[in-house]
Amino acid sequence: MGAVNTRGAAPKQDRSRATRQRLLESAVTCLAEHGWTGSTVTVVAEHAGVSRGAAQHHFPTREDLFTAAVEYVAEERSKALRSPERHGDVDVDVDGGGDADGGGAPGTRAAVEKLVALFTGPLFRAALQLWVAASNEPQLHLRVTKLEARIGRETHRMAVELLGADESVPGVRETVQGLLDMARGLGLANLLTDDSARRERVVAQWELIVREALAR
Amino acid sequence: MGAVNTRGAAPKQDRSRATRQRLLESAVTCLAEHGWTGSTVTVVAEHAGVSRGAAQHHFPTREDLFTAAVEYVAEERSKALRSPERHGDVDVDVDGGGDADGGGAPGTRAAVEKLVALFTGPLFRAALQLWVAASNEPQLHLRVTKLEARIGRETHRMAVELLGADESVPGVRETVQGLLDMARGLGLANLLTDDSARRERVVAQWELIVREALAR
Repeated sequence: MGAVNTRGAAPKQDRSRATRQRLLESAVTCLAEHGWTGSTVTVVAEHAGVSRGAAQHHFPTREDLFTAAVEYVAEERSKALRSPERHGDVDVDVDGGGDADGGGAPGTRAAVEKLVALFTGPLFRAALQLWVAASNEPQLHLRVTKLEARIGRETHRMAVELLGADESVPGVRETVQGLLDMARGLGLANLLTDDSARRERVVAQWELIVREALAR
Repeated sequence: MGAVNTRGAAPKQDRSRATRQRLLESAVTCLAEHGWTGSTVTVVAEHAGVSRGAAQHHFPTREDLFTAAVEYVAEERSKALRSPERHGDVDVDVDGGGDADGGGAPGTRAAVEKLVALFTGPLFRAALQLWVAASNEPQLHLRVTKLEARIGRETHRMAVELLGADESVPGVRETVQGLLDMARGLGLANLLTDDSARRERVVAQWELIVREALAR
Protein backbone atom coordinates (compact mmCIF):
# COMPACT_ATOMS: atom_id res chain seq x y z
CA MET A 1 0.00 0.00 0.00
CA GLY A 2 1.94 3.12 -1.03
CA ALA A 3 5.32 4.50 -0.01
CA VAL A 4 6.05 5.29 3.62
CA ASN A 5 9.22 6.08 5.46
CA THR A 6 8.26 5.54 9.06
CA ARG A 7 4.63 4.72 9.81
CA GLY A 8 1.19 6.32 10.27
CA ALA A 9 0.22 9.26 8.08
CA ALA A 10 0.91 8.07 4.57
CA PRO A 11 -0.47 4.53 4.93
CA LYS A 12 -3.45 5.94 6.80
CA GLN A 13 -4.16 8.33 3.92
CA ASP A 14 -3.67 5.53 1.44
CA ARG A 15 -6.03 3.28 3.37
CA SER A 16 -8.59 6.05 3.54
CA ARG A 17 -8.32 6.66 -0.20
CA ALA A 18 -8.60 2.94 -0.89
CA THR A 19 -11.69 2.65 1.32
CA ARG A 20 -13.32 5.61 -0.43
CA GLN A 21 -12.56 4.05 -3.81
CA ARG A 22 -13.99 0.68 -2.74
CA LEU A 23 -17.16 2.38 -1.49
CA LEU A 24 -17.62 4.22 -4.78
CA GLU A 25 -17.10 1.08 -6.84
CA SER A 26 -19.51 -0.85 -4.64
CA ALA A 27 -22.08 1.94 -4.91
CA VAL A 28 -21.91 1.70 -8.72
CA THR A 29 -22.21 -2.08 -8.66
CA CYS A 30 -25.14 -2.03 -6.21
CA LEU A 31 -26.92 0.70 -8.16
CA ALA A 32 -26.57 -1.23 -11.43
CA GLU A 33 -27.64 -4.51 -9.83
CA HIS A 34 -30.28 -3.56 -7.28
CA GLY A 35 -31.42 -0.09 -8.32
CA TRP A 36 -31.77 2.90 -6.03
CA THR A 37 -34.23 1.30 -3.62
CA GLY A 38 -32.04 -1.73 -3.02
CA SER A 39 -28.87 0.33 -2.58
CA THR A 40 -28.79 1.62 0.98
CA VAL A 41 -25.54 2.75 2.63
CA THR A 42 -25.62 -0.46 4.68
CA VAL A 43 -25.83 -2.63 1.55
CA VAL A 44 -23.01 -0.72 -0.14
CA ALA A 45 -20.77 -0.80 2.97
CA GLU A 46 -21.30 -4.54 3.28
CA HIS A 47 -20.48 -5.08 -0.40
CA ALA A 48 -17.30 -3.01 0.05
CA GLY A 49 -16.32 -4.89 3.21
CA VAL A 50 -16.37 -1.65 5.21
CA SER A 51 -18.21 -0.88 8.46
CA ARG A 52 -21.29 1.32 8.26
CA GLY A 53 -19.52 3.87 10.48
CA ALA A 54 -16.51 4.04 8.18
CA ALA A 55 -18.83 4.47 5.19
CA GLN A 56 -20.59 7.35 6.91
CA HIS A 57 -17.28 8.95 7.78
CA HIS A 58 -16.60 9.24 4.05
CA PHE A 59 -20.17 9.96 2.97
CA PRO A 60 -22.47 11.40 5.65
CA THR A 61 -25.66 10.79 3.65
CA ARG A 62 -26.87 8.32 1.04
CA GLU A 63 -27.19 11.19 -1.45
CA ASP A 64 -23.54 12.15 -0.82
CA LEU A 65 -22.44 8.60 -1.51
CA PHE A 66 -24.40 8.25 -4.73
CA THR A 67 -23.65 11.62 -6.25
CA ALA A 68 -19.96 10.95 -5.55
CA ALA A 69 -20.41 7.54 -7.17
CA VAL A 70 -21.90 9.04 -10.31
CA GLU A 71 -19.17 11.66 -10.42
CA TYR A 72 -16.71 8.79 -10.19
CA VAL A 73 -18.57 7.02 -13.00
CA ALA A 74 -18.38 10.18 -15.11
CA GLU A 75 -14.63 10.45 -14.55
CA GLU A 76 -14.13 6.81 -15.49
CA ARG A 77 -16.18 7.33 -18.64
CA SER A 78 -14.14 10.42 -19.54
CA LYS A 79 -10.92 8.46 -19.05
CA ALA A 80 -12.27 5.71 -21.29
CA LEU A 81 -13.11 8.23 -24.03
CA ARG A 82 -9.71 9.89 -23.78
CA SER A 83 -7.69 6.69 -23.83
CA PRO A 84 -6.27 5.93 -27.28
CA GLU A 85 -6.79 2.17 -26.91
CA ARG A 86 -9.92 0.12 -26.55
CA HIS A 87 -11.28 0.55 -23.04
CA GLY A 88 -12.60 -1.96 -20.57
CA ASP A 89 -16.21 -0.85 -20.22
CA VAL A 90 -17.39 -2.97 -23.14
CA ASP A 91 -15.61 -4.65 -25.99
CA VAL A 92 -14.95 -2.13 -28.69
CA ASP A 93 -13.52 -3.08 -32.02
CA VAL A 94 -11.39 -0.13 -33.03
CA ASP A 95 -9.58 -2.03 -35.76
CA GLY A 96 -10.26 -1.04 -39.34
CA GLY A 97 -12.08 2.07 -40.44
CA GLY A 98 -9.77 4.08 -38.24
CA ASP A 99 -7.20 4.91 -40.83
CA ALA A 100 -9.46 4.84 -43.84
CA ASP A 101 -10.49 8.48 -43.70
CA GLY A 102 -7.02 9.78 -42.79
CA GLY A 103 -6.50 13.10 -41.00
CA GLY A 104 -5.41 13.73 -37.45
CA ALA A 105 -8.64 12.69 -35.74
CA PRO A 106 -9.19 8.99 -35.11
CA GLY A 107 -11.47 7.44 -37.73
CA THR A 108 -15.17 8.16 -37.61
CA ARG A 109 -15.88 4.48 -37.06
CA ALA A 110 -13.62 4.24 -34.04
CA ALA A 111 -15.08 7.49 -32.69
CA VAL A 112 -18.69 6.39 -33.12
CA GLU A 113 -17.95 3.01 -31.57
CA LYS A 114 -16.23 4.61 -28.60
CA LEU A 115 -19.10 7.00 -28.03
CA VAL A 116 -21.68 4.23 -28.26
CA ALA A 117 -19.61 2.04 -25.93
CA LEU A 118 -19.81 4.83 -23.34
CA PHE A 119 -23.54 4.31 -23.12
CA THR A 120 -23.74 0.54 -23.12
CA GLY A 121 -21.52 -0.55 -20.25
CA PRO A 122 -22.17 -1.00 -16.51
CA LEU A 123 -21.23 2.62 -15.86
CA PHE A 124 -24.13 3.83 -17.99
CA ARG A 125 -26.41 1.32 -16.31
CA ALA A 126 -25.55 2.77 -12.89
CA ALA A 127 -26.05 6.32 -14.15
CA LEU A 128 -29.44 5.33 -15.58
CA GLN A 129 -30.57 4.00 -12.20
CA LEU A 130 -29.55 7.29 -10.60
CA TRP A 131 -31.37 9.40 -13.23
CA VAL A 132 -34.58 7.47 -12.75
CA ALA A 133 -34.23 7.64 -8.96
CA ALA A 134 -33.59 11.39 -9.23
CA SER A 135 -36.80 11.81 -11.23
CA ASN A 136 -38.73 10.54 -8.18
CA GLU A 137 -36.54 11.69 -5.26
CA PRO A 138 -36.54 15.47 -4.79
CA GLN A 139 -33.40 15.36 -2.62
CA LEU A 140 -31.45 13.81 -5.50
CA HIS A 141 -32.97 15.80 -8.36
CA LEU A 142 -30.96 19.03 -8.17
CA ARG A 143 -27.63 17.28 -7.56
CA VAL A 144 -28.05 14.82 -10.38
CA THR A 145 -29.32 17.50 -12.77
CA LYS A 146 -26.26 19.71 -12.13
CA LEU A 147 -23.93 16.78 -12.42
CA GLU A 148 -25.58 15.64 -15.66
CA ALA A 149 -25.32 19.10 -17.22
CA ARG A 150 -21.57 19.08 -16.55
CA ILE A 151 -21.11 15.53 -17.80
CA GLY A 152 -23.20 16.30 -20.90
CA ARG A 153 -21.00 19.28 -21.80
CA GLU A 154 -17.84 17.26 -21.22
CA THR A 155 -19.10 14.33 -23.31
CA HIS A 156 -20.11 16.65 -26.12
CA ARG A 157 -16.70 18.34 -26.11
CA MET A 158 -14.96 14.97 -26.28
CA ALA A 159 -17.27 13.75 -29.05
CA VAL A 160 -16.44 16.82 -31.17
CA GLU A 161 -12.75 16.14 -30.65
CA LEU A 162 -12.95 12.41 -31.40
CA LEU A 163 -14.97 13.01 -34.55
CA GLY A 164 -12.73 15.89 -35.64
CA ALA A 165 -15.94 17.88 -36.17
CA ASP A 166 -15.93 21.59 -36.99
CA GLU A 167 -18.69 23.20 -34.97
CA SER A 168 -18.39 26.51 -36.78
CA VAL A 169 -20.22 24.83 -39.68
CA PRO A 170 -24.00 25.23 -39.28
CA GLY A 171 -25.70 22.00 -38.25
CA VAL A 172 -22.54 20.22 -37.08
CA ARG A 173 -23.26 20.86 -33.39
CA GLU A 174 -26.72 19.31 -33.76
CA THR A 175 -25.35 16.38 -35.77
CA VAL A 176 -22.98 15.53 -32.91
CA GLN A 177 -25.73 16.01 -30.32
CA GLY A 178 -28.09 13.71 -32.22
CA LEU A 179 -25.39 11.07 -32.44
CA LEU A 180 -24.95 11.20 -28.66
CA ASP A 181 -28.73 10.98 -28.25
CA MET A 182 -28.69 7.88 -30.43
CA ALA A 183 -25.89 6.38 -28.33
CA ARG A 184 -27.97 7.05 -25.21
CA GLY A 185 -30.99 5.36 -26.81
CA LEU A 186 -28.85 2.35 -27.75
CA GLY A 187 -27.77 2.16 -24.12
CA LEU A 188 -31.37 2.09 -22.99
CA ALA A 189 -32.22 -0.59 -25.56
CA ASN A 190 -29.49 -2.70 -23.97
CA LEU A 191 -30.96 -2.49 -20.47
CA LEU A 192 -33.16 -5.60 -20.45
CA THR A 193 -31.61 -7.79 -23.13
CA ASP A 194 -28.26 -8.11 -24.88
CA ASP A 195 -28.79 -5.84 -27.87
CA SER A 196 -25.22 -6.04 -29.20
CA ALA A 197 -25.93 -7.82 -32.53
CA ARG A 198 -28.60 -5.34 -33.61
CA ARG A 199 -26.54 -2.45 -32.24
CA GLU A 200 -23.53 -3.40 -34.32
CA ARG A 201 -25.55 -3.18 -37.53
CA VAL A 202 -27.12 0.14 -36.55
CA VAL A 203 -23.74 1.62 -35.64
CA ALA A 204 -22.17 0.48 -38.92
CA GLN A 205 -24.92 2.18 -40.91
CA TRP A 206 -24.95 5.37 -38.86
CA GLU A 207 -21.21 5.68 -38.97
CA LEU A 208 -21.55 6.07 -42.75
CA ILE A 209 -24.38 8.57 -42.39
CA VAL A 210 -22.53 10.67 -39.79
CA ARG A 211 -19.34 10.62 -41.82
CA GLU A 212 -21.19 12.02 -44.84
CA ALA A 213 -23.08 14.57 -42.79
CA LEU A 214 -19.87 15.85 -41.24
CA ALA A 215 -18.03 15.93 -44.57
CA ARG A 216 -20.51 18.39 -46.10
CA MET B 1 -70.85 -10.73 -14.43
CA GLY B 2 -71.57 -11.81 -18.03
CA ALA B 3 -74.53 -10.95 -20.23
CA VAL B 4 -77.99 -10.34 -18.75
CA ASN B 5 -81.10 -9.25 -20.61
CA THR B 6 -83.20 -7.34 -18.09
CA ARG B 7 -81.24 -4.71 -16.22
CA GLY B 8 -77.86 -4.07 -14.69
CA ALA B 9 -75.71 -6.02 -17.11
CA ALA B 10 -74.76 -3.41 -19.65
CA PRO B 11 -74.20 -0.58 -17.18
CA LYS B 12 -72.38 -3.03 -14.90
CA GLN B 13 -70.05 -4.05 -17.74
CA ASP B 14 -69.55 -0.42 -18.58
CA ARG B 15 -68.72 0.36 -14.98
CA SER B 16 -66.28 -2.53 -14.84
CA ARG B 17 -64.60 -1.37 -18.02
CA ALA B 18 -64.44 2.18 -16.72
CA THR B 19 -62.90 0.99 -13.43
CA ARG B 20 -60.30 -1.04 -15.28
CA GLN B 21 -59.46 1.96 -17.46
CA ARG B 22 -59.15 4.26 -14.43
CA LEU B 23 -56.84 1.76 -12.74
CA LEU B 24 -54.61 1.56 -15.80
CA GLU B 25 -54.43 5.33 -16.15
CA SER B 26 -53.65 5.71 -12.46
CA ALA B 27 -50.97 3.04 -12.69
CA VAL B 28 -49.29 4.99 -15.50
CA THR B 29 -49.51 8.27 -13.58
CA CYS B 30 -48.18 6.71 -10.36
CA LEU B 31 -45.36 4.96 -12.19
CA ALA B 32 -44.29 8.19 -13.92
CA GLU B 33 -44.55 10.22 -10.72
CA HIS B 34 -43.40 7.90 -7.95
CA GLY B 35 -41.48 5.16 -9.74
CA TRP B 36 -41.94 1.44 -9.22
CA THR B 37 -41.18 1.44 -5.52
CA GLY B 38 -43.74 4.11 -4.75
CA SER B 39 -46.43 2.51 -6.91
CA THR B 40 -48.10 -0.23 -4.88
CA VAL B 41 -51.57 -1.54 -5.76
CA THR B 42 -52.90 0.37 -2.73
CA VAL B 43 -51.44 3.66 -3.96
CA VAL B 44 -52.82 3.11 -7.46
CA ALA B 45 -56.28 2.07 -6.20
CA GLU B 46 -56.43 5.16 -4.01
CA HIS B 47 -55.41 7.40 -6.91
CA ALA B 48 -58.12 5.80 -9.06
CA GLY B 49 -60.75 6.17 -6.31
CA VAL B 50 -61.29 2.39 -6.29
CA SER B 51 -61.19 0.00 -3.32
CA ARG B 52 -58.18 -2.26 -2.97
CA GLY B 53 -60.47 -5.28 -3.34
CA ALA B 54 -61.94 -4.00 -6.59
CA ALA B 55 -58.44 -3.33 -7.89
CA GLN B 56 -57.39 -6.88 -7.05
CA HIS B 57 -60.50 -8.24 -8.74
CA HIS B 58 -59.22 -6.71 -11.99
CA PHE B 59 -55.53 -7.33 -11.39
CA PRO B 60 -54.67 -10.12 -8.92
CA THR B 61 -51.00 -9.09 -8.59
CA ARG B 62 -48.98 -5.90 -8.82
CA GLU B 63 -47.14 -7.35 -11.81
CA ASP B 64 -50.47 -8.00 -13.57
CA LEU B 65 -51.51 -4.41 -13.01
CA PHE B 66 -48.28 -2.90 -14.27
CA THR B 67 -47.78 -5.09 -17.32
CA ALA B 68 -51.39 -4.34 -18.28
CA ALA B 69 -50.63 -0.65 -17.72
CA VAL B 70 -47.63 -0.74 -20.01
CA GLU B 71 -49.61 -2.64 -22.63
CA TYR B 72 -52.20 0.09 -22.35
CA VAL B 73 -49.43 2.69 -22.74
CA ALA B 74 -48.17 0.89 -25.83
CA GLU B 75 -51.65 0.90 -27.37
CA GLU B 76 -52.08 4.60 -26.66
CA ARG B 77 -48.71 5.30 -28.23
CA SER B 78 -49.65 3.25 -31.30
CA LYS B 79 -52.89 5.19 -31.62
CA ALA B 80 -50.97 8.45 -31.37
CA LEU B 81 -48.62 7.34 -34.15
CA ARG B 82 -51.48 6.25 -36.37
CA SER B 83 -53.55 9.39 -35.93
CA PRO B 84 -53.18 11.77 -38.85
CA GLU B 85 -53.37 14.89 -36.66
CA ARG B 86 -51.10 16.11 -33.93
CA HIS B 87 -51.64 13.97 -30.86
CA GLY B 88 -52.03 14.89 -27.23
CA ASP B 89 -48.99 13.21 -25.68
CA VAL B 90 -46.77 16.22 -26.26
CA ASP B 91 -47.00 19.28 -28.43
CA VAL B 92 -45.94 18.39 -31.91
CA ASP B 93 -45.54 20.99 -34.58
CA VAL B 94 -46.58 19.22 -37.74
CA ASP B 95 -46.91 22.44 -39.70
CA GLY B 96 -44.48 23.06 -42.50
CA GLY B 97 -42.00 20.58 -43.86
CA GLY B 98 -44.79 18.10 -44.30
CA ASP B 99 -45.66 19.00 -47.83
CA ALA B 100 -42.22 20.10 -48.92
CA ASP B 101 -41.05 16.69 -50.06
CA GLY B 102 -44.29 15.65 -51.72
CA GLY B 103 -45.05 11.99 -52.30
CA GLY B 104 -47.70 9.81 -50.70
CA ALA B 105 -46.02 9.37 -47.31
CA PRO B 106 -46.45 12.16 -44.78
CA GLY B 107 -43.46 14.50 -44.84
CA THR B 108 -40.25 13.29 -43.27
CA ARG B 109 -40.35 16.19 -40.84
CA ALA B 110 -43.82 15.33 -39.57
CA ALA B 111 -42.82 11.66 -39.34
CA VAL B 112 -39.63 12.35 -37.40
CA GLU B 113 -41.43 14.75 -35.07
CA LYS B 114 -44.17 12.21 -34.42
CA LEU B 115 -41.67 9.46 -33.68
CA VAL B 116 -39.67 11.67 -31.33
CA ALA B 117 -42.87 12.82 -29.60
CA LEU B 118 -43.62 9.14 -28.85
CA PHE B 119 -40.55 9.03 -26.63
CA THR B 120 -40.85 12.33 -24.82
CA GLY B 121 -44.30 12.27 -23.23
CA PRO B 122 -45.61 10.90 -19.92
CA LEU B 123 -46.29 7.52 -21.56
CA PHE B 124 -42.60 7.05 -22.30
CA ARG B 125 -41.76 8.21 -18.79
CA ALA B 126 -43.98 5.48 -17.32
CA ALA B 127 -42.50 2.86 -19.64
CA LEU B 128 -38.99 3.94 -18.61
CA GLN B 129 -39.84 3.45 -14.94
CA LEU B 130 -41.06 -0.05 -15.72
CA TRP B 131 -37.97 -0.95 -17.76
CA VAL B 132 -35.65 0.13 -14.96
CA ALA B 133 -37.78 -1.70 -12.38
CA ALA B 134 -37.73 -4.81 -14.60
CA SER B 135 -33.94 -4.68 -14.72
CA ASN B 136 -33.91 -5.18 -10.94
CA GLU B 137 -37.08 -7.23 -10.34
CA PRO B 138 -36.86 -10.78 -11.70
CA GLN B 139 -40.64 -11.25 -11.53
CA LEU B 140 -41.10 -8.34 -13.96
CA HIS B 141 -38.16 -8.99 -16.23
CA LEU B 142 -39.58 -11.67 -18.54
CA ARG B 143 -42.97 -10.00 -18.92
CA VAL B 144 -41.55 -6.59 -19.71
CA THR B 145 -38.95 -8.04 -22.08
CA LYS B 146 -41.61 -9.88 -24.10
CA LEU B 147 -43.86 -6.86 -24.13
CA GLU B 148 -41.01 -4.61 -25.21
CA ALA B 149 -40.06 -6.91 -28.08
CA ARG B 150 -43.62 -6.73 -29.40
CA ILE B 151 -43.84 -2.96 -28.93
CA GLY B 152 -40.44 -2.52 -30.57
CA ARG B 153 -41.53 -4.44 -33.68
CA GLU B 154 -44.78 -2.50 -33.86
CA THR B 155 -43.04 0.85 -33.47
CA HIS B 156 -40.51 -0.06 -36.14
CA ARG B 157 -43.26 -1.10 -38.55
CA MET B 158 -45.09 2.16 -38.00
CA ALA B 159 -41.90 4.20 -38.39
CA VAL B 160 -41.20 2.55 -41.77
CA GLU B 161 -44.72 3.39 -42.87
CA LEU B 162 -44.66 6.99 -41.64
CA LEU B 163 -41.30 7.63 -43.28
CA GLY B 164 -42.35 5.87 -46.49
CA ALA B 165 -39.06 3.94 -46.22
CA ASP B 166 -38.21 1.04 -48.53
CA GLU B 167 -36.61 -1.65 -46.40
CA SER B 168 -35.56 -3.72 -49.40
CA VAL B 169 -32.78 -1.16 -49.92
CA PRO B 170 -29.66 -2.17 -47.96
CA GLY B 171 -29.08 0.00 -44.89
CA VAL B 172 -32.62 1.44 -44.76
CA ARG B 173 -33.70 -0.88 -41.96
CA GLU B 174 -30.73 0.21 -39.84
CA THR B 175 -31.32 3.88 -40.69
CA VAL B 176 -34.85 3.64 -39.32
CA GLN B 177 -33.68 1.70 -36.26
CA GLY B 178 -30.99 4.29 -35.50
CA LEU B 179 -33.57 7.06 -35.76
CA LEU B 180 -35.77 5.27 -33.21
CA ASP B 181 -32.74 4.81 -30.96
CA MET B 182 -32.12 8.54 -31.21
CA ALA B 183 -35.74 9.25 -30.31
CA ARG B 184 -35.37 6.99 -27.27
CA GLY B 185 -32.20 8.82 -26.26
CA LEU B 186 -33.97 12.17 -26.63
CA GLY B 187 -36.68 10.83 -24.34
CA LEU B 188 -34.13 9.92 -21.72
CA ALA B 189 -32.49 13.35 -22.01
CA ASN B 190 -35.90 14.84 -21.19
CA LEU B 191 -36.30 12.88 -17.96
CA LEU B 192 -34.80 15.33 -15.46
CA THR B 193 -35.12 18.67 -17.24
CA ASP B 194 -37.18 20.17 -20.02
CA ASP B 195 -34.99 19.46 -23.02
CA SER B 196 -37.45 20.69 -25.67
CA ALA B 197 -35.46 23.68 -26.99
CA ARG B 198 -32.31 21.65 -27.63
CA ARG B 199 -34.39 18.75 -28.92
CA GLU B 200 -36.10 20.92 -31.50
CA ARG B 201 -32.76 21.93 -33.03
CA VAL B 202 -31.46 18.34 -33.02
CA VAL B 203 -34.65 17.06 -34.65
CA ALA B 204 -34.53 19.75 -37.36
CA GLN B 205 -30.97 18.80 -38.28
CA TRP B 206 -31.57 15.04 -38.14
CA GLU B 207 -34.69 15.30 -40.22
CA LEU B 208 -32.46 16.62 -43.04
CA ILE B 209 -29.90 13.85 -42.48
CA VAL B 210 -32.53 11.09 -42.45
CA ARG B 211 -34.26 12.48 -45.52
CA GLU B 212 -31.01 12.37 -47.48
CA ALA B 213 -30.06 8.94 -46.17
CA LEU B 214 -33.45 7.52 -47.20
CA ALA B 215 -33.36 9.21 -50.61
CA ARG B 216 -30.15 7.44 -51.63
